[in-house]
Amino acid sequence: MFDELKTKGNVARQAARRLAALDTRTKNRALQTIADTLIEQQAAVLDANRKDIEAGREAGLSDALLDRLLINPSRLDGIANDVISVVALPDPVGEVFDARTLPNGLQVSKRRVPLGVIGVIYESRPNVTVDIAALCLKSGNAAILRGGKEAAHTNRALASAVALACEKSGLPAGSIQLIHSQDRALVKELLTASQFIDMIIPRGGAGLHQYAIDNATIPVITGGIGIGHAYVAPSADPEKTVPIIYNSKVQRPTVCNALDVLLIHQAAAPSLLPKIADNLAEAGVELRCDEEALSLLQGHPAVQPAGDQDFDTEFLSLVLAVKIVDSLDEALEHIHSHSTHHSDVILTEDYSEAIRFTNEVDSAAVYVNASTRFTDGSQLGLGAEVAVSTQRLHARGPMGLKELTTYKWVILGTGQVRE
Amino acid sequence: MFDELKTKGNVARQAARRLAALDTRTKNRALQTIADTLIEQQAAVLDANRKDIEAGREAGLSDALLDRLLINPSRLDGIANDVISVVALPDPVGEVFDARTLPNGLQVSKRRVPLGVIGVIYESRPNVTVDIAALCLKSGNAAILRGGKEAAHTNRALASAVALACEKSGLPAGSIQLIHSQDRALVKELLTASQFIDMIIPRGGAGLHQYAIDNATIPVITGGIGIGHAYVAPSADPEKTVPIIYNSKVQRPTVCNALDVLLIHQAAAPSLLPKIADNLAEAGVELRCDEEALSLLQGHPAVQPAGDQDFDTEFLSLVLAVKIVDSLDEALEHIHSHSTHHSDVILTEDYSEAIRFTNEVDSAAVYVNASTRFTDGSQLGLGAEVAVSTQRLHARGPMGLKELTTYKWVILGTGQVRE
Repeated sequence: MFDELKTKGNVARQAARRLAALDTRTKNRALQTIADTLIEQQAAVLDANRKDIEAGREAGLSDALLDRLLINPSRLDGIANDVISVVALPDPVGEVFDARTLPNGLQVSKRRVPLGVIGVIYESRPNVTVDIAALCLKSGNAAILRGGKEAAHTNRALASAVALACEKSGLPAGSIQLIHSQDRALVKELLTASQFIDMIIPRGGAGLHQYAIDNATIPVITGGIGIGHAYVAPSADPEKTVPIIYNSKVQRPTVCNALDVLLIHQAAAPSLLPKIADNLAEAGVELRCDEEALSLLQGHPAVQPAGDQDFDTEFLSLVLAVKIVDSLDEALEHIHSHSTHHSDVILTEDYSEAIRFTNEVDSAAVYVNASTRFTDGSQLGLGAEVAVSTQRLHARGPMGLKELTTYKWVILGTGQVRE
Repeated sequence: MFDELKTKGNVARQAARRLAALDTRTKNRALQTIADTLIEQQAAVLDANRKDIEAGREAGLSDALLDRLLINPSRLDGIANDVISVVALPDPVGEVFDARTLPNGLQVSKRRVPLGVIGVIYESRPNVTVDIAALCLKSGNAAILRGGKEAAHTNRALASAVALACEKSGLPAGSIQLIHSQDRALVKELLTASQFIDMIIPRGGAGLHQYAIDNATIPVITGGIGIGHAYVAPSADPEKTVPIIYNSKVQRPTVCNALDVLLIHQAAAPSLLPKIADNLAEAGVELRCDEEALSLLQGHPAVQPAGDQDFDTEFLSLVLAVKIVDSLDEALEHIHSHSTHHSDVILTEDYSEAIRFTNEVDSAAVYVNASTRFTDGSQLGLGAEVAVSTQRLHARGPMGLKELTTYKWVILGTGQVRE
């Protein structure tokens, strides 16, 4: 095993044990200190970021990637403010639930405790370093972070600021540690270092997620990939439908909860599809249509025939696949066959159809008459999110602080034995 | 991929989709029919079991193993009655929780849904075939079962009876399927067949659990292995302590929640340890003692010096390691260093010590003044158990029906879009 991983793993385990015992006030004070220290360290962070930006430019990174890397004073303020917003969130640790007294007098309850050490593997965006640190600390977890090499200098500067703040606040050394080695073999070891790490969160593209699933022996939270479907029923209200489709597709097309596939009932399509298409055209959305949709949209700009893969693609861009269906059944079958189990919506005014859709679509988030863009921890009331899970175990959909915890059974007796 | 796995996997996926939609009444009727059918098929089951017992005898299986394999009319009645007891348990599917209305009017809730298809890999005891079938069906899941070769005939007969009952009750064909191949390569494929299986439960020894962790890409529920600790404090009440230690060690020594290590404070040891030892001696328990304990128990029968491994061994037999400690701190350190995170107990009348122990011991079940043998789904009020998890994600400790489910977010809107 890499020395860096072994050393940091041991330190993280020790830190986790102490973090688990901290009260909320101490953790909140540390978060405030992290925010303050980030601002104090602004010069060092911006210097480091300039090195990454220069190296990125030399390496020919796209403007979009360079923009994701960039930290300027106002972005650093934003990162610090996000830490302060975690102060206000309720601390899940110590929650007592499912409490009962058994017939034999045993007092049984479950008590929420931190998971332990969280391993996070992420790609270019350096703000993840601070975001995850704040969420892990608030939930009493230690973290081992492995960021991308494009952001190596920035991540080091941010992690140093976090470590300094932890020290100032009396938090254990090594509560939040950044892996410095960029050796890919270390990532593979990280995924199997179950003696040090309790859960792995990959944050990045589909390739990173699959690599983690294939190589980890530690439980992995997978997600972040979504082919979103909207089904427009004959009774759909155009006043709701057109803006919802627009918002789902256009408001932020590069993320996992954006819409990818529009299924529209043949009875609704002649009147509604052109309206939807006109509206989307204003934002420059390209429509990839099946034959029937194509004939309804003849002469429309930015319309073209759908290819083989267009109903199985997370576009992450201003592209929408369109298909005419002849029933709710066909829509449900299509979603079932092509689902990534992320976010799907029905547009309808028909009560029974709405019920059937919410019952039968098996996704992390199932909507009636609302934008799929709400599949997000802050939007759904969790305050923050560490990931959006599309797996079935532990947590599904947006994961907040509570999803960084587990529980133990506490059983208080007065001498009971089993008969 | 093995044809058998591919075929059964596809069938299980289809069955799971229909099972998820069944109401509780239909599922309960099917469980009653399974119980009836098992009794109707008694002759076939006992015939099959005789073949396994004969083959086991020829293969030189121990009497203990042959006894675990054996099914006689009264044991079959017991298996059928266990199925009927699942009828009475509440159905977790459809439970709505964390419901709220957001400031923008979105009505958000989580709804409990089945996990999908459960893969179970188990060793000799054939009753697992029926137990797991009942729990999976009640929670709306399909199951693919792979039992041990010692019980192959019995498992086939039991699985046939279950399949017949499912057919009679109108449940989907293939709701519960047994893998017939005994090829070990198929098990390895099963552990990575994520297109067909959502969760793997290994039921067996430490070797099987480790094999599943190392080879699975599907989430695995690990557990079933426990080194249980009892710490006897100076204030421990002998009237409670002696029976609790006895019950924890002796009541069923072959299972994971039995006691393995006794830590006793030096102030309590001189008076209490001989009483505990005398009491345990009645059941033939062998004590493996550190030096101090040894000197306190001089001349006692069945006492010997502890070896290197005795504080890191799940004995599964009438053996108990004994160590004298000089403080609660030392006891907590010992448990921390040797823990398998299963079940640990403090014997004390001191309030602050009890609080510290429950706060600081990080195990699935932490006890004050009660037998560790209560770490069990039926004992703790779950009604039944599919496994005892010692991992941290998804579920910890005894897992019942609820732990065979996940949830989806259901979001009811009236036209909301994200700003």
